[in-house]
Amino acid sequence: MDFLEEPIPGVGTYDDFNTIDWVREKSRDRDRHREITNKSKESTWALIHSVSDAFSGWLLMLLIGLLSGSLAGLIDISAHWMTDLKEGICTGGFWFNHEHCCWNSEHVTFEDRDKCPEWNSWSQLIISTDEGAFAYIVNYFMYVLWALLFAFLAVSLVKVFAPYACGSGIPEIKTILSGFIIRGYLGKWTLVIKTITLVLAVSSGLSLGKEGPLVHVACCCGNILCHCFNKYRKNEAKRREVLSAAAAAGVSVAFGAPIGGVLFSLEEVSYYFPLKTLWRSFFAALVAAFTLRSINPFGNSRLVLFYVEFHTPWHLFELVPFILLGIFGGLWGALFIRTNIAWCRKRKTTQLGKYPVVEVLVVTAITAILAFPNEYTRMSTSELISELFNDCGLLDSSKLCDYENHFNTSKGGELPDRPAGMGVYSAMWQLALTLILKIVITIFTFGMKIPSGLFIPSMAVGAIAGRLLGVGMEQLAYYHHDWAIFNSWCSQGADCITPGLYAMVGAAACLGGVTRMTVSLVVIMFELTGGLEYIVPLMAAAMTSKWVADALGREGIYDAHIRLNGYPFLEAKEEFAHKTLAMDVMKPRRNDPLLTVLTQDSMTVEDVETIISETTYSGFPVVVSRESQRLVGFVLRRDLIISIENARKKQDGVVSTSIIYFTEHSPPMPPYTPPTLKLRNILDLSPFTVTDLTPMEIVVDIFRKLGLRQCLITHNGRLLGIITKKDVLKHIAQMANKDPDSILFN
Amino acid sequence: MDFLEEPIPGVGTYDDFNTIDWVREKSRDRDRHREITNKSKESTWALIHSVSDAFSGWLLMLLIGLLSGSLAGLIDISAHWMTDLKEGICTGGFWFNHEHCCWNSEHVTFEDRDKCPEWNSWSQLIISTDEGAFAYIVNYFMYVLWALLFAFLAVSLVKVFAPYACGSGIPEIKTILSGFIIRGYLGKWTLVIKTITLVLAVSSGLSLGKEGPLVHVACCCGNILCHCFNKYRKNEAKRREVLSAAAAAGVSVAFGAPIGGVLFSLEEVSYYFPLKTLWRSFFAALVAAFTLRSINPFGNSRLVLFYVEFHTPWHLFELVPFILLGIFGGLWGALFIRTNIAWCRKRKTTQLGKYPVVEVLVVTAITAILAFPNEYTRMSTSELISELFNDCGLLDSSKLCDYENHFNTSKGGELPDRPAGMGVYSAMWQLALTLILKIVITIFTFGMKIPSGLFIPSMAVGAIAGRLLGVGMEQLAYYHHDWAIFNSWCSQGADCITPGLYAMVGAAACLGGVTRMTVSLVVIMFELTGGLEYIVPLMAAAMTSKWVADALGREGIYDAHIRLNGYPFLEAKEEFAHKTLAMDVMKPRRNDPLLTVLTQDSMTVEDVETIISETTYSGFPVVVSRESQRLVGFVLRRDLIISIENARKKQDGVVSTSIIYFTEHSPPMPPYTPPTLKLRNILDLSPFTVTDLTPMEIVVDIFRKLGLRQCLITHNGRLLGIITKKDVLKHIAQMANKDPDSILFN
Repeated sequence: MDFLEEPIPGVGTYDDFNTIDWVREKSRDRDRHREITNKSKESTWALIHSVSDAFSGWLLMLLIGLLSGSLAGLIDISAHWMTDLKEGICTGGFWFNHEHCCWNSEHVTFEDRDKCPEWNSWSQLIISTDEGAFAYIVNYFMYVLWALLFAFLAVSLVKVFAPYACGSGIPEIKTILSGFIIRGYLGKWTLVIKTITLVLAVSSGLSLGKEGPLVHVACCCGNILCHCFNKYRKNEAKRREVLSAAAAAGVSVAFGAPIGGVLFSLEEVSYYFPLKTLWRSFFAALVAAFTLRSINPFGNSRLVLFYVEFHTPWHLFELVPFILLGIFGGLWGALFIRTNIAWCRKRKTTQLGKYPVVEVLVVTAITAILAFPNEYTRMSTSELISELFNDCGLLDSSKLCDYENHFNTSKGGELPDRPAGMGVYSAMWQLALTLILKIVITIFTFGMKIPSGLFIPSMAVGAIAGRLLGVGMEQLAYYHHDWAIFNSWCSQGADCITPGLYAMVGAAACLGGVTRMTVSLVVIMFELTGGLEYIVPLMAAAMTSKWVADALGREGIYDAHIRLNGYPFLEAKEEFAHKTLAMDVMKPRRNDPLLTVLTQDSMTVEDVETIISETTYSGFPVVVSRESQRLVGFVLRRDLIISIENARKKQDGVVSTSIIYFTEHSPPMPPYTPPTLKLRNILDLSPFTVTDLTPMEIVVDIFRKLGLRQCLITHNGRLLGIITKKDVLKHIAQMANKDPDSILFN
Repeated sequence: MDFLEEPIPGVGTYDDFNTIDWVREKSRDRDRHREITNKSKESTWALIHSVSDAFSGWLLMLLIGLLSGSLAGLIDISAHWMTDLKEGICTGGFWFNHEHCCWNSEHVTFEDRDKCPEWNSWSQLIISTDEGAFAYIVNYFMYVLWALLFAFLAVSLVKVFAPYACGSGIPEIKTILSGFIIRGYLGKWTLVIKTITLVLAVSSGLSLGKEGPLVHVACCCGNILCHCFNKYRKNEAKRREVLSAAAAAGVSVAFGAPIGGVLFSLEEVSYYFPLKTLWRSFFAALVAAFTLRSINPFGNSRLVLFYVEFHTPWHLFELVPFILLGIFGGLWGALFIRTNIAWCRKRKTTQLGKYPVVEVLVVTAITAILAFPNEYTRMSTSELISELFNDCGLLDSSKLCDYENHFNTSKGGELPDRPAGMGVYSAMWQLALTLILKIVITIFTFGMKIPSGLFIPSMAVGAIAGRLLGVGMEQLAYYHHDWAIFNSWCSQGADCITPGLYAMVGAAACLGGVTRMTVSLVVIMFELTGGLEYIVPLMAAAMTSKWVADALGREGIYDAHIRLNGYPFLEAKEEFAHKTLAMDVMKPRRNDPLLTVLTQDSMTVEDVETIISETTYSGFPVVVSRESQRLVGFVLRRDLIISIENARKKQDGVVSTSIIYFTEHSPPMPPYTPPTLKLRNILDLSPFTVTDLTPMEIVVDIFRKLGLRQCLITHNGRLLGIITKKDVLKHIAQMANKDPDSILFN
């Protein structure tokens, strides 16, 4: 029996918190594919297997789309119900939320759509009245109580069952997609607990969104479903292609924006994104979006979260306020990232991090107590955004639309600019307070040990600022329509300014400032709102916001969190601009002992075992001889350990004095010498090498583009040293005047 | 004076029809950038220079957007006017086209918008009547005459002034973007002649579109404008980033689809597309689109070419006909590519290619003669598509909308399904004839020596097929609304089927079949038509079409033309699936003479000159010594020739017996020996190497991702051979059972 032909179990797998070798994984997949293609000519069964293998990718995408769409629908419905539970309960059936409760009611008028006898606030249930100060206090108390209960449940579940379920998950997913291994991060427990606690966290009224975590949920779905397909279960590179598509599906269901989701995955999350994945991501995103639409959680059979109805044109002059919003967004983004990272660092390094439950409860209590008195903080954040985006129609009865009805001449449903009424003024004050609360509380919320996204809070901040500015502009245009800047395009009684558009632009600007997304952001915003006309305003704001935020700090929030956690992530967006050479980065450094190498035909098992036990390197170069230092190949520590162990167990007579051969043929041995151990099969015969004089910018480029773990350094054909991904990251950190020891993993 | 510090003019440039070295170009740009950044701290002037350098990219994008938008507007307006010139002339001013002529008229009724006394057909001008057979013949004759005149002018101008102005240009642009050099292809003459001849070609009524050539025009703009900026003029890699963005701007103005343009550039055209380029492309595309909108060539202040008004929902069952359209699109795509390539090959290899003027005139004559009698072939193709996409409204008076008015109950502007009238039936027949004509004539048109795009003809074929199927389905649903497939969602008198949607889906399917675009196609289609609701139908059709077409032939039309012309294009979409090793591909082959190498310190000028004259290799590896074969670096033939020539001219005493040193320090020389020539500065000290046992799939990957020109092969640290891009391409062709000698350039 040829021992070498059988793969040894464990060879070719990776340890937890390690980086995969993209080149090896892709090679293995191509070998697999070739084998199936070759066999397919032999029998019908093999042909069917080959066809099913080719289509398994599409099937997997379909399943991911269906599962993540269903989960998103479930989360939406439950979160909606539980958010309303804080205010009251439906006597017609406790499982109805406020809106559904009153849909089924006969006693509801068009004016007061949300008031019906079946819906009872807690004060009505407990003290049978909804009027007076005492009822208000009862409702206030119940609101805070429910919020605390939800938050407590969420943080406890996360803490006990799935610590990986906290946060938004996007920084970790970015790292995983770049080739890092975090076992269990995308596992079934994480999926279950994250889904449940996400509902609880959103319902607790904390300043967080469900969009980021939904990406994590979709990626968990993708990862779990991968286990059903051999092709994806066994190959880390192929699995990451699936995860990229799953991330697209996640954004797609989060916002109802399939194209935006694909672009988000491409621009922000993914590392290796071949065109095939682009196409499949699009499919998964579409299936997910349509599954969600069939579930119809918003009850309006719209795919999108915030549909805007207005199509009024904007004017060139308005670019000035839009750019102002962009600057605001950039400033908010930079401020948020700095303070949030500082706070998270404090949490990591001080006692604070040891009491996650207390922290969550305190933040929840503060949020709930401050939020209840103000109707704009009390309502869920996505409802708030939706209201801010909307333009006031004739039938709108909300406070934000309480304009004085000077003109009853409405042409074609469009309302002309009007002076603001009392309601608008009071709404402005409340919104200003909401803005301050959201800005402060979000900084402390993002990063707690519960699922928390920051798309929605960021958008809320921007939407409030935008609406404030929009209403201001509108009133300015109304009262001063003879000003030079207005009179060319804005006559009295005309509809010049759309405050909802300002809210939209503000939301885009703030989201852009925090995440530094660009094209995908604009696409998401216009898919989200259905407003194809507003590309230029959105774009101008997103661009300004990115420039302003970049000037104050290069990293987006996700990259900042990646660095905070010390993950080995090689940013593809930044160019490495320093003039160092490979020899400045490689190990061993100038005065260190020589590089630890194995020779191809002169080391015994014992020699190798000594080297393994004395060093912690994850791999060793194999050379022809120590004198020549001519490189033959590279062998991984893990593979070496497993193979030697295996040989000692199974292969007759392999002892400590057996010689290990990495050559193709071992020379004939004199009798009575111990049998040799042939290990050429675990040797990587095509290790990547560069010369010592290669500029680091090229080395960084090679690491990024080929997804290497390590690269060997030669000088005039002799092996000189080695550069690992960790060395590269440390060097980049050092050149950027950051702490190189913040890179924790290899 | 240190001679070596001064760059020798010509070193680091490329010959025509050669491949650039991406790594070197990017390195050079980073050096430049570093120098500017370092200097910026020294003086205010240098700081301003540094800032202006950073913003020059954006300024360039702005200029490209403005210029290509203006040119597109100009082309649209002129083509519109000249197309109408074939039918008649405006007496109110010969510079008005038909539509504008009648706009200014007072004698025009709403019913007959296109008839006014100011517009005179040729028969009216010549024989003063528009009635009767003779008038028809006069008009017919004039139509053909003008068509021939336009075509003759177009082909003559192309032939005499700018041979590169013919075709769509996209295959060549793809090749150029992948790092190939074709001097003059994007030059000013090409720009001028292509702009003029494009108008002529479109006006001549040939079955071609202006969309592909507009991409070429935009790229010419980009290339020419690059000359104003040092950063882009001198660096081939940076210039290609600009060209990618220009391509996006080109598609953006061609269709009024900025996002689609960016995705087209990303998916179809570009090779190296960093995220920075994504963002800039988006900017250029937007500026271009808005410039075009300000020019307003369609007179409807819409950005898009074919705006659809309908928003009626589609039903799940309709996916069946949509998928049928997808299959049709795939079949048409595969058929078109095969026959067109066969015909183009014939043109290249037989006498046919020698008479381009005659060929164009013959095809134009046939097209014009066959086109005039049928109103759907007589109108311009984009008008035809626009009419096919449109849904019939109440006020539509065209033949396609001649339904019997059974029901006068229209609710909210929507028309119920109605039985087709005589007009519709005759329109169906004419459309069927149009379909056949377009299918046949387009095959012969694309590839002639005039500017010709095939987006519009492909879309026309699909739109006709789609409309035919759509009307068929509509009538089926009207007459058989009790069939099981209809009765669940389609009651009598309801509006179930939208034939315009079928035309849209068909157009997408055919365009997808020909170009194999996927995501960008869907995005272009919905930007083009403003129909966000129809992603799923469009997607289903595009997907089916791609699958069907791929099953019949892997290449899209552009790739097929690239291969036909023998350009060295390394396709990034296809994975290399064969199990060959680098040693199977490298030169020298097993029985060839040894690799030609230079040694680092023992060759004289004469030795090197002999090697240069005896070989044609474009570069030589430099080794420590012939015995050790240990690699030091790589030197390019062009640089070597220039340097030696330069040294002989300028450096005192360099003679044929001078020794060339590639080492850092040359040893002290005994007196009276000729001075040495130090050439370390032209030596590439970080050549890429792989081992001889590296699988070719990895080598192909490295060539693609890093943009290499050549890669050296080592075995156990010794230099063994070399693989150039041409070798890789030849090997790929060989493995795919194609002619390896079809790869012409390096």
